[in-house]
Parts: sequence; structure tokens; C-alpha cells
Amino acid sequence: MGVVVPLEESKRFATASIEPLVRLTREPMERVNELILARAGSNVELIPEIARHLIDSGGKRLRPMLTIAGAGMCGYEGDGRVKLAVSVEFMHTATLLHDDVVDESDLRRGKAAARMLWGNQASVLVGDFLLGQAFKMMVEVGSLEALEILSNAAAIIAEGEVMQLGAAKNTATTEDEYLAVIQAKTAALFSAAAEVGPVLAGRGRAERAAFRSYGTNLGLAFQLVDDALDYGGTSANLGKRVGDDFREGKITLPVVLSYRRGSDADRIFWKKVLEDGEIGDGDLEHAIQLMRTHRAIDDTVERARHFGAVARDALAPFPDSPHKAALLEAVDFCIARVS
Amino acid sequence: MGVVVPLEESKRFATASIEPLVRLTREPMERVNELILARAGSNVELIPEIARHLIDSGGKRLRPMLTIAGAGMCGYEGDGRVKLAVSVEFMHTATLLHDDVVDESDLRRGKAAARMLWGNQASVLVGDFLLGQAFKMMVEVGSLEALEILSNAAAIIAEGEVMQLGAAKNTATTEDEYLAVIQAKTAALFSAAAEVGPVLAGRGRAERAAFRSYGTNLGLAFQLVDDALDYGGTSANLGKRVGDDFREGKITLPVVLSYRRGSDADRIFWKKVLEDGEIGDGDLEHAIQLMRTHRAIDDTVERARHFGAVARDALAPFPDSPHKAALLEAVDFCIARVS
Repeated sequence: MGVVVPLEESKRFATASIEPLVRLTREPMERVNELILARAGSNVELIPEIARHLIDSGGKRLRPMLTIAGAGMCGYEGDGRVKLAVSVEFMHTATLLHDDVVDESDLRRGKAAARMLWGNQASVLVGDFLLGQAFKMMVEVGSLEALEILSNAAAIIAEGEVMQLGAAKNTATTEDEYLAVIQAKTAALFSAAAEVGPVLAGRGRAERAAFRSYGTNLGLAFQLVDDALDYGGTSANLGKRVGDDFREGKITLPVVLSYRRGSDADRIFWKKVLEDGEIGDGDLEHAIQLMRTHRAIDDTVERARHFGAVARDALAPFPDSPHKAALLEAVDFCIARVS
Repeated sequence: MGVVVPLEESKRFATASIEPLVRLTREPMERVNELILARAGSNVELIPEIARHLIDSGGKRLRPMLTIAGAGMCGYEGDGRVKLAVSVEFMHTATLLHDDVVDESDLRRGKAAARMLWGNQASVLVGDFLLGQAFKMMVEVGSLEALEILSNAAAIIAEGEVMQLGAAKNTATTEDEYLAVIQAKTAALFSAAAEVGPVLAGRGRAERAAFRSYGTNLGLAFQLVDDALDYGGTSANLGKRVGDDFREGKITLPVVLSYRRGSDADRIFWKKVLEDGEIGDGDLEHAIQLMRTHRAIDDTVERARHFGAVARDALAPFPDSPHKAALLEAVDFCIARVS
């Protein structure tokens, strides 16, 4: 039996789009893109080359958009939001560079990972360079509160990577342990990206907490939906590229649920492919089949819906505005990607 | 529109009972009850009097049952589980005594609060006495790991109380902030109560983590359902005593959601009754009406279902057994109380 979604909610998901958020943030996001190119520049030749490889590889720039929209919704339109948005994107890019080295990934968003073209050392160091540039820009903005939020996020992200290293390849990871990892690895930066908006606008504790909560829960929902998509999502057709997480032996929520709900034979399979890395022909298809049998993908999306609902309620107290509507629709859009 | 629950799940809730857990733990729970009376004894006359007032007031003893059943499910049937179960119940009782003083409550489970009969000082000190007895018993059991888990929980509970003091009467509390409070105040003890079972049985990291996660998420679901019940639950008939939390100005999830989803006028009302404590005739009815309008009670239960689902998956990997079935049914029972 599939996930039962109330009619009203399912209509909301069916029409959800990221376009309103893109439209509302277009002008400052153009400045964000210019500043990204400017600040990824360096006389050291390798740096702009590697940075652009990643920057041009077509992410949605969701994190900097959160900063821009959060500031806009709170009535701040100064330059600070552009610099902090770029800081957030650089922190994200640095994480990707370092992640690929740690995970020994060959590909990133379907293209060769930077480390495959320029090597591990260069990837680590250019990541450090981008982190350094991110901190320089935060300091230029001059908000100690924003600095505190973003530097705190940087520490948590690094902590999350180490935590994941510890939990790596452990198929017996609990859902709570997995949530703690993505809370640190993904949600902390979403949270910081969202919170610095009201901070720049000089808003008080309650508004900051609301944006922090919005970002955190959007980040959790976003990551869980990504996890589900990597196994083809809830639809039966597997048109898009699936199985990257599987091939890298990543333990994500669909695996956690399938492992826990499975038979002894299932668990031997999961250990073989993910802990021992012995992946043979048909193993990905078998993994997806097990996930369907145990409703693991459906329930991963169901968990994402829970966090999406919390994110929506976080912003609920703010007066209606185009920014608020766009940020709420972005939550539904993140979840609708999978439906 | 009401909450849409898949048919299979709704059937499970309709028949869920705590009886299997009560039946399975009957013999050791009788010893738990004897030990409670023995260890609440003292030559200082006031101590057994106050302790019994609370102990006799008819809690379900859910927390010590978790310890007994957790140990039983992992194959440990020694004396240690009885002592640790009593430690858990004493920690809980001490929290109630201290809570009533902090919250200036007149009633506890429909009876006069201990502090109304014997005063605040005696309530605080008898709480301390019970905590001391709890630690003595843990030491007698001699498991350093169990001591670490339970003493850690004691510290977290106290931290949660202080956290709540800070968040008290703040209607703008976010859902995440509220969850952090109940994570500490309620879920930490459920978690510790569940985890010491496999610890006594000498089980490894994965099994401990599974029980910890089961306890945590059951605790969260339990507390959220309690919150919903205090406003009459999801049914329209308000037969049972409702509004205790309201009269005490407690910010619980139904309030958090109603406040966030409400109009400016609604928010003025919530501040008046909960922050300023100005409760007049018909205000409770108005509060419940607002909650129904904004689906705040339904969605509180919906959030509880999410945590219940996580609790169930935590125990999923264990082989089928009467203990496992009883612990899973206890999750549904906790949620079914409200339906």
C-alpha cells in the first residue's frame, strides 16, 4: 500500500515549484554569481580552475537563495546578504570537495569529481581556500552574530563528517544515528543560511529561531528526499541515474529501514554489498526490490514530509508576503521532486 | 479534513493494548513494586508518607516496565533489572515532586500535589532522597555502563527543567525548541530505561543503540500524545479532565502550532492567557476551538505517529518474540490513547 497523503496536501505538492523563489531572488542572485566568480579567483592558477569546475556544474544554489530570501523577507536588502550568501555557497562547495576525497568518489553530479582531474591534494587545499574566502567575506560583513552562526555551522559540518566516518559502512546504524549525521552534514548549513537573513535585518530571538528551525527541517527533508531519489524515488520508472549512494556503500535512510525491516538473508545481502563492498550484477536491482518490499523508500519520503511540515510551521507566524510564500513552496518543491 | 491514516495502520491502532506488556512483566513488576515500597521507607517519618502518596497515585509504571521488558527481550532475567527498574521509577517520581514545586502545581494526576499537603521544602527534599536511593540501587547493581546511562539521563533531565524555565511562558517557542525540552524532560528517561536492559544482558553497541532509539522516540510520542490529551485529544467529546496544561500556562505542541498558525488576534489571546496568566470564563473552550480550527491537535498526534514509527523501526531488527511484540504494541497503545 502506498503512502496516503491528504488530498489538499497532494495538490500542494503537485503544483509546487522553485520558480517563485528563483524569481524573487533573481537580482541579488546575479550579484551572488558574480561575487562567486570574483572570489574564487586567485593568482594561483589551479584554484579558479578547480573552483569553477564545481561552481559551473549546475547546483540549484538553494542555500544562498535561502540567505537572500530570508534577509529579503525580514526587510534587509543591503550588500551583506550577497556576501553571506556567497560564504554559504563556498562552505558548501568546500564540503563537496572534501567529501569526494574522503568518500573516494569518482563522480559528482554526473561529472568527473575534481579529485579525479586534479588529484586529492589539490581538492583538499582548494576546499580550504574556499573556506578561507568564506570566512574573509563574513568578516567583511562585520556582523559578529552572523559570524558566530556560520562558523558554528562550519564546525558542526566537520564534526558530522567525522561522525559519518565512524558510522561508515555500518548497516546497523539506527535512524536516530543517521539523522544526527545529516543534521550535522546537511541541515546545519541550511539552518545557518536561513538564520543569517533575520540576523542581518536585526530581528529578535523568536524570528531567528523560526528561520533556524525552517532551515534545519528543510535541510533534513531535502537530504531524505535525495536519499530516496538515489534509489529511484517512489515511482516505478528508474529513468534517472540511480545507485550512486549504493555503489559508494553509503548508509542512507532507505538502507537503514530496509536493513532493520528485512530478513536475516536480507541483512547478509546488505552487509555484503555495503560493508564489504562486494557489488555484483543485479545487486542494485535487488536492493531496490528489497526497499520496495519493505516500503523503505515510501517511508523515507514520509519522514521527509514530517520535517517539511515542521519547516512550514516554523515560518507560519510571519505575515503573508511573496518571500514567505516562495520559501514555503520551496519546502513542497523539495519533497515533490520525489513524487 | 482529518488526519488520513492508512487502513492497515488504523487497524493496528484500534486494537493496540498495553496488556501484553503488563502480562509479560507481571512477576518481576511485582518485585519492582515491593522494592519501591521497601526503598521508599525511612526512619524519617515524612519520607515514606510523601513517597507513597505519589507511588500510590496510579501511574502505569511504563518506564520500569521498559527496563524489565528490555532486559527480558535480551535474555537477562537477573535481579539487576528489578533494581534498575526501581531506580528509573524513583528518578521519575523525584522529577514529578520537583516539577510540581517549580510549576507551583496544585494537582498531580487529579489528586492534591505533595507540595500542597506537605509543603515545597519537603517535596524538594524527598525528591532528593529518592534520587539518592536510585543512585544507591544503581551502584548495588554494579554495572558501570548502566550507571553511566542513568546518571547521564539524570543530568539531562535537570538540564531540560532549566531549559524549560528559560522557555517558560514564551508562546513564540518553536517546535524544535519544544522538542528539545521534551527530549530532555521525558524522552531521556524513556531512553535510559530501555537501554539498560540490553546493557545488563551484555549486548553490543547496535542493540543498545536500537533500544536507546526505541525509548527516545516512544518518549517523544508519549509526551506529544499527553499534550494532545490535555486538550481533549482528537475526539470532539471532552469527557475527561482537560486543560491542566492550559491553566498552568504550559507551552505544549498544540499551543505552539496554534500560535504559529493563528491570526494576530489569536496571538494576542495566547499571550494573554499563557504569558500573562489572565484566564477568564470560556478561555479554555476558545483555546480548544482555535486548536481545532488550525488542526493543531490532529497534527500534534500526527507528529507523535512519526516518532512512533521511528520507535518501531528501531526494534525491527530483533527476532520475533513475545517481548518484542509487546514493546511494539506499547508504542501503538501510547498513540491509540488519543484516537
